[in-house]
Amino acid sequence: MKRRLLLRVLILLLGIVSLAMIPSLILAVRDQNSSVIRAFVLPMAITLSAALVALFWQRKTPVRFNPGDGFLLVSLAWFFTSILGALPLYLAHGVPTFADAVFESVSGFTTTGATIFKDVEILPRAILFWRAMTHWLGGMGIVVLTVALLPLLGVGGFQLVKAETPGPEKDKVAPKITATAKILWILYLALTAIQVGLLMLGGMNWFDATTHAFATMATGGFGTKNASIGYYNSAWIDGVCTVFMILAGFNFSLYYRVITGKARDLFYNSEARAYLGIFIVASLVVALSIIPLYGSFPKAFRYASFQVSSILTTTGFSTADFDRWPSLAKAVLLTLMFIGGSSGSTGGGIKVIRHVVLFKQAGNEIRRLLFPRGVFSVQLNGKVGRKDVVYGVAGFVFLYLALVFFVTLVVASAGIDLISSLSASLATVGNIGPGFGLVGPSQNYSILPSYVKWVLSVAMIAGRLELWTVFVLLTPEFWRR
Amino acid sequence: MKRRLLLRVLILLLGIVSLAMIPSLILAVRDQNSSVIRAFVLPMAITLSAALVALFWQRKTPVRFNPGDGFLLVSLAWFFTSILGALPLYLAHGVPTFADAVFESVSGFTTTGATIFKDVEILPRAILFWRAMTHWLGGMGIVVLTVALLPLLGVGGFQLVKAETPGPEKDKVAPKITATAKILWILYLALTAIQVGLLMLGGMNWFDATTHAFATMATGGFGTKNASIGYYNSAWIDGVCTVFMILAGFNFSLYYRVITGKARDLFYNSEARAYLGIFIVASLVVALSIIPLYGSFPKAFRYASFQVSSILTTTGFSTADFDRWPSLAKAVLLTLMFIGGSSGSTGGGIKVIRHVVLFKQAGNEIRRLLFPRGVFSVQLNGKVGRKDVVYGVAGFVFLYLALVFFVTLVVASAGIDLISSLSASLATVGNIGPGFGLVGPSQNYSILPSYVKWVLSVAMIAGRLELWTVFVLLTPEFWRR
Repeated sequence: MKRRLLLRVLILLLGIVSLAMIPSLILAVRDQNSSVIRAFVLPMAITLSAALVALFWQRKTPVRFNPGDGFLLVSLAWFFTSILGALPLYLAHGVPTFADAVFESVSGFTTTGATIFKDVEILPRAILFWRAMTHWLGGMGIVVLTVALLPLLGVGGFQLVKAETPGPEKDKVAPKITATAKILWILYLALTAIQVGLLMLGGMNWFDATTHAFATMATGGFGTKNASIGYYNSAWIDGVCTVFMILAGFNFSLYYRVITGKARDLFYNSEARAYLGIFIVASLVVALSIIPLYGSFPKAFRYASFQVSSILTTTGFSTADFDRWPSLAKAVLLTLMFIGGSSGSTGGGIKVIRHVVLFKQAGNEIRRLLFPRGVFSVQLNGKVGRKDVVYGVAGFVFLYLALVFFVTLVVASAGIDLISSLSASLATVGNIGPGFGLVGPSQNYSILPSYVKWVLSVAMIAGRLELWTVFVLLTPEFWRR
Repeated sequence: MKRRLLLRVLILLLGIVSLAMIPSLILAVRDQNSSVIRAFVLPMAITLSAALVALFWQRKTPVRFNPGDGFLLVSLAWFFTSILGALPLYLAHGVPTFADAVFESVSGFTTTGATIFKDVEILPRAILFWRAMTHWLGGMGIVVLTVALLPLLGVGGFQLVKAETPGPEKDKVAPKITATAKILWILYLALTAIQVGLLMLGGMNWFDATTHAFATMATGGFGTKNASIGYYNSAWIDGVCTVFMILAGFNFSLYYRVITGKARDLFYNSEARAYLGIFIVASLVVALSIIPLYGSFPKAFRYASFQVSSILTTTGFSTADFDRWPSLAKAVLLTLMFIGGSSGSTGGGIKVIRHVVLFKQAGNEIRRLLFPRGVFSVQLNGKVGRKDVVYGVAGFVFLYLALVFFVTLVVASAGIDLISSLSASLATVGNIGPGFGLVGPSQNYSILPSYVKWVLSVAMIAGRLELWTVFVLLTPEFWRR
């Protein structure tokens, strides 16, 4: 019975996630905060006992999962994990409604970083650590999902990876998913550890360094201070975060190649080149436009490159209230919200590779008009891409924009002004976090009514799971199978 | 020598356009406004004498135009016609700078309807009539261009028309361009005349009726009153305009089929169905959201359907200051700005058919995930479309959005707020007219600095000529030919 297997896998996953509550529980115990201790113990106790039962549950003969089951499993995993993650927030009495708790938890696991807390500095350390942990787990999950799992289901990365190298197997980071996952986790862990060290060198205590490193590597954005990274007012910390946000926005399979001595591949990678190019050009334009605010180009560039990498990689940290920056700088950031990180990174959004594909396709159309008999195809990484890459990308971008506009309508229906509604939609569908206006970096999502928070929660999950994973569940064909 | 032939064709075209100044000249003479008379006589005299010379110019042996020459000719035609159209506005001392005159003229010929005039009611009748005339000529030009000419050059309509019927010739309105053009012009003229009559029935004088019918059929939007159609405060006039805006936003080749007894085709036309569906759903949503402002659903629906058709068809008339409507209504209008009219209509924007293609492609991608071995293709008008339709559409939409964001950056660089910048860009690239905020329906484009007006002028022409026509001129390959 497939349904039972699905349930078993989900319960075991929730059990593993609840183990990740242990550090928060320890913090709560050390801080002697009994209501917070209860808020973690209760969900852990329930989930772990269910997991124990599931573990020893009589397993029937092995069942093969087909793609459809995979989509259902992944969607449900993100959904139920988020519900579990919401419980400590809700039970600790820090949030007004369950919708708020779910929004915050979904925002964490989807590495969005949009918060409903007006003041995070009054939150118990255990809760702050749990928020960072949801990011880190979500980021880890998404890398494995997009580099190793989704490709097997035929979503996103797969088509692009296939396009990159004609041999379908060659481009897999390693031949087997478990091996791939192991390598990716070690990489992720190593990068996080290095960032923790560098942040502590800059004067952060271990708690701030760890939570912020979790939020950076996951391109999440939850911090422990109301002023986000701006609180530390340190060029070193800004610089470390900028570099690690950019690192987290690269395709993780590229790191594997660098490790295995194929660093040269980096230079031929179309997406990596475009990603860095966008980062540099956008940083320069923003820096030039905010010089009047910061006095000198170097200082302006520090703030500009930080904010550009934060929005481009969909992290959502801030070192300044960019909602008060000049229009040009804001328009650049708005444009970046439509771009996003690289495929196979922890970043969200449409992803750079899709823009590269469409840009090249547009160029081909122009060439085709001049040379009607010519045959033009999209080249990626110096090689000719598969023809159907453009199909997948076109469908994705349309669906993405359609979702963005639908969610904008939902937010606007609550009477929220246009640019706040549009940017709230972009910031959640794209897993960015802060937007402009009422959801700007100095604001939060608490003012939105509950129904909007539920819709935004679903939008964050859909955006995080490359849309298809969730949208496929909405078709009658899926349920008719 | 091709260059000389190009010049000759352009001069003759300008001669024809300057003949269209005659009605305005007559109005100026009747109003005994000597400076306005001079403003029309001067450009007419120069252009007509040049045209006479060109007419009797020794024509060399006939030269065949290739697609590249076609793009150059069409782009230059729109550009020089706009310069000619700007002269009366500039010479009549009604505008502060030449950039303003060109902006207004480009806005007219591209049927955009964005104005730099703070107060149009103080303008001489001759100038008002000329503004309406630029719309009408531009609209006529664009219908012939998109239904008859551009398809021959391989742009836009071509791919779509090819997709509609497998036989490449069948879908042409008539076998030859001149015959096609004649039929389209008669249709255009007839619809305009009917609308003039209906508007006069509603109490408009012949002048207002003619200018507004010109602006409606061209989906332009220039009016003769500061409050646009809202000035008349008449349900009849609102209704007539709504119906004729919607009519002008249909593909004109459909009218040909209706005339030739193939009215049934209307029901199978994917674009027409989607276009009407969007109009109805959007009108209902807007109407429901503005009931509190207008007291009853019928009255709310009158204002809603008017504004929805005005924005969807990219006309730009208004009967209310929609910038003060609730957020939801504004968000619907913002979304419509990304859609546009039908292909082969006088409407601008991305066009409904492209959304239909991408929507179906997205559906196919989902189906492909569920049934990996299935073969799915986009169906239009009940028939299987050509595979490369999606390529053209994907390239176009990317280029369109890239242009919208680039222009947004340019407007924002002048310190204009985000939503005004974004909507100004959408309203010009999409040939709509009014946007939100500083360029809202009760405002105008006069506050923008000259460099922004020049960029917006180019954007209007690029948007009007289906992008490719202008973008192809920007490639090195074009000039290397």
